[in-house]
Amino acid sequence: MSQSPKRSKLTVEEYVLGVKEQNRAILARAITLVESNAKKHLQLAQDVLTELMPQTGQSIRIGFSGVPGAGKSTLIEAFGMMLCEKGHKVAVLAVDPSSSLTGGSILGDKTRMEQLSRHPNAYVRPSPAGGTLGGVARKTRETLLLCEAAGYDVIIVETVGVGQSEVAVRSMVDFFLVLMLTGAGDELQGMKKGIMEMADAMFINKADGPNKQAAEQARVELDRMLHLLPPITEGWSTKAYTVSALTGEGVDHIWSVIQDHKEHMQQNNIFHKRRNEQALRWFRDLIEEQVLVEFYQNEKVKTILPQMQEQVLTGQSSATKAALEILEVKNEK
Amino acid sequence: MSQSPKRSKLTVEEYVLGVKEQNRAILARAITLVESNAKKHLQLAQDVLTELMPQTGQSIRIGFSGVPGAGKSTLIEAFGMMLCEKGHKVAVLAVDPSSSLTGGSILGDKTRMEQLSRHPNAYVRPSPAGGTLGGVARKTRETLLLCEAAGYDVIIVETVGVGQSEVAVRSMVDFFLVLMLTGAGDELQGMKKGIMEMADAMFINKADGPNKQAAEQARVELDRMLHLLPPITEGWSTKAYTVSALTGEGVDHIWSVIQDHKEHMQQNNIFHKRRNEQALRWFRDLIEEQVLVEFYQNEKVKTILPQMQEQVLTGQSSATKAALEILEVKNEK
Repeated sequence: MSQSPKRSKLTVEEYVLGVKEQNRAILARAITLVESNAKKHLQLAQDVLTELMPQTGQSIRIGFSGVPGAGKSTLIEAFGMMLCEKGHKVAVLAVDPSSSLTGGSILGDKTRMEQLSRHPNAYVRPSPAGGTLGGVARKTRETLLLCEAAGYDVIIVETVGVGQSEVAVRSMVDFFLVLMLTGAGDELQGMKKGIMEMADAMFINKADGPNKQAAEQARVELDRMLHLLPPITEGWSTKAYTVSALTGEGVDHIWSVIQDHKEHMQQNNIFHKRRNEQALRWFRDLIEEQVLVEFYQNEKVKTILPQMQEQVLTGQSSATKAALEILEVKNEK
Repeated sequence: MSQSPKRSKLTVEEYVLGVKEQNRAILARAITLVESNAKKHLQLAQDVLTELMPQTGQSIRIGFSGVPGAGKSTLIEAFGMMLCEKGHKVAVLAVDPSSSLTGGSILGDKTRMEQLSRHPNAYVRPSPAGGTLGGVARKTRETLLLCEAAGYDVIIVETVGVGQSEVAVRSMVDFFLVLMLTGAGDELQGMKKGIMEMADAMFINKADGPNKQAAEQARVELDRMLHLLPPITEGWSTKAYTVSALTGEGVDHIWSVIQDHKEHMQQNNIFHKRRNEQALRWFRDLIEEQVLVEFYQNEKVKTILPQMQEQVLTGQSSATKAALEILEVKNEK
């Protein structure tokens, strides 16, 4: 794992071979490559990924979300350690679009998950920095593929418990877990209900000591609400459970719920169906994002857009007319 | 309102004048024009709209949603009649993307809202047919503007209680009302919770006779849930109320809640802020929709897209690489 300050560049073949051989240092460099915003790295990164595609897809992909303060990191560490002890290889990634602004609220601090980070079977990687959610999500998705190619069979993607990043993570995992805190009724405070609809399971953390009974009450109430929602996975009932990262009680149950869920998906032929849908949706998103970027970067568009917006706001033009006019100007030769 | 079977074409000026003069027959023809999918009508429709833009914006725009069977039409009729009797001019529009497939589940049946339809102060228009939600939403939005220009000061946009059409309607109104049915606890069954987050008020219908007590219980429970959600309108508490379209009890309360809400928005300078945001968002959506349509209609793209999708699904190419390749092919001269 020692790195000389000036590293020689690797070829596509060296990256591919290194990842396949489960060389952690080369995996780390490959991830850095897909995370790079430099145009010259993009082609190389995609060549490496394309070569490794046949080695991907063999892991179980788990999304891990929850409100800040719910104890995600501590629980992921306990859960990851348990899996590593069972012989699994566990990668922990993150999607946190705020990380480039704030310096990283997830996994940015290297002292987090210290124990898990040192385990030979685990690989913990902070959220890529870099602007838009779309960019961060692409990088995490590709990192997930690299980790699969490097033999990690459990991939955990952590995310902050608010906003659109949950949707991005939901769209790249097989199983989506939402972590909550106790506090009867109030547990939904500040949490968008939309996230409940995305969950394959909800766990109430810190169900220990004097808090245990309140956690159990919150679980019952949550179960009742979940029962009213349409299931995110066809034929699967999303349920609420209690867990304690502190005492370890219930941590093994996370794994058995995930196993049950996977079995359910496989028996009903929805495991690969979902993966294929995710891959196609991702592909479409990538294309459409790029098409729109090209459009807004067009010089003619950049010139005319502010004027047209003004005309729409002041009622000088209908929105449709203004939109058509911009497209016409763009397409002029 | 008599129309000869072969109508002469109207000029932009004739449309504009007719709408301004509140001529119902010409308003109906102007709406038919913006609903037309024929390319030759598009330019004319947009010229008419642009001329009328200074006359728009003076109404209160109300979204009206709820599960099928909640009694939306009956309540809208009672509510609309009450407003007409007070001297308001009321237009009732609809967004129902399924109408082109099913023949129209909203307002398609002309016998619905029969009483209101005949009132001289009311104008009831079924949902435009026509494919995509985007298309239907655009047409309804433009119809809303035409109705404003024709002097209607209350515009009600009705929508089915499921899916993306609620989002489309939310984005074109000042106030969004969700109608529910009684049935303690079960009232959320089949209804996406997301819709609760969009509501400025929720009304429980059929609070009459032996059902009155159950409705009140449901109201209390709903209020408790709403209390946990972040408000859709800054500083406004979304509350639940009971109403009966049958007895008329509570119908006047709908109007007073809407008035309070408008006052709140105006006092806090969010009324015009929201309208401006909606207009810009709509403008952007129109542009982006059109940019993507152009992209997918590109002959080169049509040829290569299926192959690239196949490569992504079979793992022969990374999604990013395939996306980049398509864009490159498209941009080749």
